[in-house]
Amino acid sequence: MKATQYQGNKTFSVIEKEITPPAKGEVRIKVAYVGVCGTDVHIYHGMMDKRVNFPETIGHEMSGVVDAIGEGVTNYSEGDKVVVRPLDDRLVKDSDKGYNHICENLKFIGIDSEGAMQQYWNVPAFVLHKLKPETDLKLAALIEPLSVATHDVRRSGLTKGETAVVLGGGPIGMLVAMVAKQVGAQVIISEVNPTRIQKAKTLGFDVINPIEEDLVKYVKSKTDNKAADVVFEVAGVQPALDVMCEVAGIRGRIVMVAIHGEKKPVDLFKFFWKELSLIGARVYEKEDYEQSIELITANELPFEEMITDIQPLSNIQEVFESIDKNPSGMKVLMDCSL
Amino acid sequence: MKATQYQGNKTFSVIEKEITPPAKGEVRIKVAYVGVCGTDVHIYHGMMDKRVNFPETIGHEMSGVVDAIGEGVTNYSEGDKVVVRPLDDRLVKDSDKGYNHICENLKFIGIDSEGAMQQYWNVPAFVLHKLKPETDLKLAALIEPLSVATHDVRRSGLTKGETAVVLGGGPIGMLVAMVAKQVGAQVIISEVNPTRIQKAKTLGFDVINPIEEDLVKYVKSKTDNKAADVVFEVAGVQPALDVMCEVAGIRGRIVMVAIHGEKKPVDLFKFFWKELSLIGARVYEKEDYEQSIELITANELPFEEMITDIQPLSNIQEVFESIDKNPSGMKVLMDCSL
Repeated sequence: MKATQYQGNKTFSVIEKEITPPAKGEVRIKVAYVGVCGTDVHIYHGMMDKRVNFPETIGHEMSGVVDAIGEGVTNYSEGDKVVVRPLDDRLVKDSDKGYNHICENLKFIGIDSEGAMQQYWNVPAFVLHKLKPETDLKLAALIEPLSVATHDVRRSGLTKGETAVVLGGGPIGMLVAMVAKQVGAQVIISEVNPTRIQKAKTLGFDVINPIEEDLVKYVKSKTDNKAADVVFEVAGVQPALDVMCEVAGIRGRIVMVAIHGEKKPVDLFKFFWKELSLIGARVYEKEDYEQSIELITANELPFEEMITDIQPLSNIQEVFESIDKNPSGMKVLMDCSL
Repeated sequence: MKATQYQGNKTFSVIEKEITPPAKGEVRIKVAYVGVCGTDVHIYHGMMDKRVNFPETIGHEMSGVVDAIGEGVTNYSEGDKVVVRPLDDRLVKDSDKGYNHICENLKFIGIDSEGAMQQYWNVPAFVLHKLKPETDLKLAALIEPLSVATHDVRRSGLTKGETAVVLGGGPIGMLVAMVAKQVGAQVIISEVNPTRIQKAKTLGFDVINPIEEDLVKYVKSKTDNKAADVVFEVAGVQPALDVMCEVAGIRGRIVMVAIHGEKKPVDLFKFFWKELSLIGARVYEKEDYEQSIELITANELPFEEMITDIQPLSNIQEVFESIDKNPSGMKVLMDCSL
C-alpha cells in the first residue's frame, strides 16, 4: 500500500508499506478520502515539530470503509462506512471531570500518533463512528471539521431566531455559519479576504467586509439594535478580539474558536457592563460527531461547495505547496485510492 | 432634616433641608443606615465627576423605614422596613432583551440621581424591597453589596461540592466567599493585604497569600488535582487576570466581578484548551435582593464582622477621609439618626 510521511522541512514522502492486520481491539480502515486541515499545514510549516515524531504519517479528517476487524471488536463489520473521531482519551483521569475530549493527557491521533494520509489505517475501534450506507464518502471527509462547528454552536447555546456573527470566513467559520443557519439563527459573516467573501455569498450568506463597512452598525441595523446574541471568534486576529466585545449585545455569548498563541488585550469592562460570556470550545464530543454524520448524510447544506479540490494522495507534496500559494481556498481532499 | 452633599473636590457638606412629601408613585423613607461603597469613594476622589451632577446627595447602600406614602402606592405601609434596589430602569428598550438591570439607559440611583446619604429620602416605589419585621436594620444596609455577591454566585452556577476561588478579599470578595460557602462549595480566598488575610481567617475562611505561596498548587492540592470549578475575579489587577486562567480547572467558570477600565492581556489559549468560560456579572436582579434579604434576616453568616465602623451621618467628611487612610477596612456604615 501507499503511505505518506511528513519528513520535516516542508517535505512529504510517499512510501510503499506492508498492510498489517489490526491488533486486538483495532479495526483496519481502507481510507477513502483525507482532508487537509489548517493544523496539517502548521505541521508542514514545521510549527509542531516538537509534537510530531517524524517521519510520521499525519492526517485526521477522513472517511473510509472497514477492511478488517481485530480480536474483540464486535460492533463493526467489513464494508461498514466509517469516520474516525481522532481523540485518544485512554489516559483520562478523575481530575478531567468527565470531559474526556479535552482531558489533560489527550493524544490527538494524526498529530501525536500515526494518522490517515495512507491507504490503510489501523485504529482502535473506540474512535470510530459508523456512517449510513448511503453517506457520501467524499462529503464524509468533512465530518471532522463539521464536528468542530457543531461543537462550537452547541457550546454557544444558539437558538432559532437569534443572531450569530461569525468573525472569519475560512473553512471552520463557514461550517460554523452553516450549522448556525441550520439552527434557525440569522447569520452574518465578517471576512476581509475577497475570495472568501465571494465564496460566502455563493453559499447564500450575508457577509460584510469590516474594513469597508462598520460591522457593529450593520449588525445593529439587522437586529432592531439588539446586536449579536452569539459571536464566533474564528479569525484569530486582534481586530476580531476588539470587535467581538462591541458587536455582542446585552448578555451576548462569544465563542472562542480561534487559537491565540499569546496573551491578547481584551475589553473586560464590556464583559462586566453587558454581562457578556466568553466560552472556550475545543474539538468535539461524541454527540457532535453524531449530529455531523446526520447533517452530511442528509446533504441539505452546501457541503459540496466546501470541497475546492480533490487530488491523488500520491500528490501530497504538491497539495501542500499549492495550499501555501492559495491560502484563500476552502477544503482540499486527497483521494487515497490514487 | 439633615442631608449631605458631595460638592466636588473631595468635599462633603451637611445641610438642613425641608422634608418633602412623596410624589405620586413615590415613598418617603426615613433612612436608618447608609453604607459607604467603593463607588462612593471613587466619587469622593472626583473620578466620576462627569456622571455625578454635584452638589448632589450620593449613597445607595441603605436600610430604612417607610415614613410616608405617595398617591397610587398600594404595596407599602408606614413603618415597613425596606431597602432600595437602586436601579432606575424606566428607560428600558426592547433591545435590552428583558435584562432590565443592565439596560442601556439604566440610571443608577445615588450616582445618576439623588441618593441615600440623608435623613429622609423620596424614591419611586418600584425600587423598594420589603424586609421582615425582625430584620436588623444595621445588617440590612449590607443587602445591596450582598446582592452583588448573590448575583455573582448565581451567574457562576456554583453548586454544592464544587471548589470556588475568590481572587481578592475586599468587602465584595468576602461577601462572595460567604455566599459561595453557604451554597456548599469549598472556598479558597486569595488576598495579599495582611489585614484582610487576618479578617478572612477570622471569618473562618481558607485564605492564602499568592505572593508567598503558589495558589495553583495549593488549590490543586485541595481538589485532587481538579483545580477550581469557579473563580471570582474581584481583585481587578493583572496578576489576578493571569492566575484566573491557571487556577481554573477543565470547563472552569470565571466570573468577572472587577471593573477593568482598560483592555488587559488575557490568556485566551487557556479558554480554548480547557474550555473555560468567562462570565460577566454586574449589579443584581430582583431575585438576588430577595435571596440577600433572606440571608440577612436569618443572620447565620458572619455579617456583623463585615461592619468595621459606624459613624454619625453628620461626620461624613471624616468618614471618607478615614476610609482613604485605612483602605483595608471592610464596611463603614453611617447612622442617619445622628
